[in-house]
Amino acid sequence: MTSGPPNAAPDGPLRPSDWRLGAWRSFLRAHASVVSELERDLLSDTGMPLGWYDVLVQLVEAPRRRLRMAELADRVLLSRSGLTRLVDRLQAEGLVRREPSEDDARGTYTVMTEPGVARLRAASPAHLASVRRHWLEHFSDDELRVLEGLLARIGVTEQ
Amino acid sequence: MTSGPPNAAPDGPLRPSDWRLGAWRSFLRAHASVVSELERDLLSDTGMPLGWYDVLVQLVEAPRRRLRMAELADRVLLSRSGLTRLVDRLQAEGLVRREPSEDDARGTYTVMTEPGVARLRAASPAHLASVRRHWLEHFSDDELRVLEGLLARIGVTEQ
Repeated sequence: MTSGPPNAAPDGPLRPSDWRLGAWRSFLRAHASVVSELERDLLSDTGMPLGWYDVLVQLVEAPRRRLRMAELADRVLLSRSGLTRLVDRLQAEGLVRREPSEDDARGTYTVMTEPGVARLRAASPAHLASVRRHWLEHFSDDELRVLEGLLARIGVTEQ
Repeated sequence: MTSGPPNAAPDGPLRPSDWRLGAWRSFLRAHASVVSELERDLLSDTGMPLGWYDVLVQLVEAPRRRLRMAELADRVLLSRSGLTRLVDRLQAEGLVRREPSEDDARGTYTVMTEPGVARLRAASPAHLASVRRHWLEHFSDDELRVLEGLLARIGVTEQ
């Protein structure tokens, strides 16, 4: 929100050749690569696009399995752009439904349906096997602990 | 491509509650969070959407600053879905142009223009300051080396 970069000091602007950007680029490449593998696997194993899976997981973990659109947009990990269209599609498939909010006349919840729960449960083992293959098996248990500790520093602030 | 998960052994199917998935979820959350911050910063600092930046970086790093669409799709880190529309938009803005391939009558390159190079150069310092703020400053130099070493294991195989 402020105009200047508050943390440009102490060592001047960051240059594209700075070695410290290596970790950043590895992070982006790892994400693009693993997500692309998971998308391919989930679609071929279960017929479900990964973006659907992401939305259904956020709903199943929410109280009463429902979220307002803005809450859902804050929680999805992959599919923020095009989210409204994606939820329309899930509704057409019967995996979610819309429900008016009881305490806000203009508010609407997206609620997971029983077929939605069943569809997620059916897809989950194949997806977890794919996460294991493309992610977990590249690391030892100790390395997973290190990764979790470091990465948890990013995005901890609520909102 | 094969039907069974080859790596389900030695300890049975992975369960959603498995502690080892913590690192995976931290990774996804860190990515969603930092990309959302970078998107907001780049747009407010330079008016450029992060997806444009991603495409322009891949082109500027390519030989003769040009790539076929399929090559570009393999290299972008953020914007694979909707890529054709995004490139159309960059073309309309004069930041890239299309050029027929000299050795393949049906092939087309997307080529970065001089205004595209200039626009990327102008946006780069603000973006790098934002990467520093939302990523680099969370880690020590040693931690960055550890992260780079671990994350580089994912997505190293060429296709």
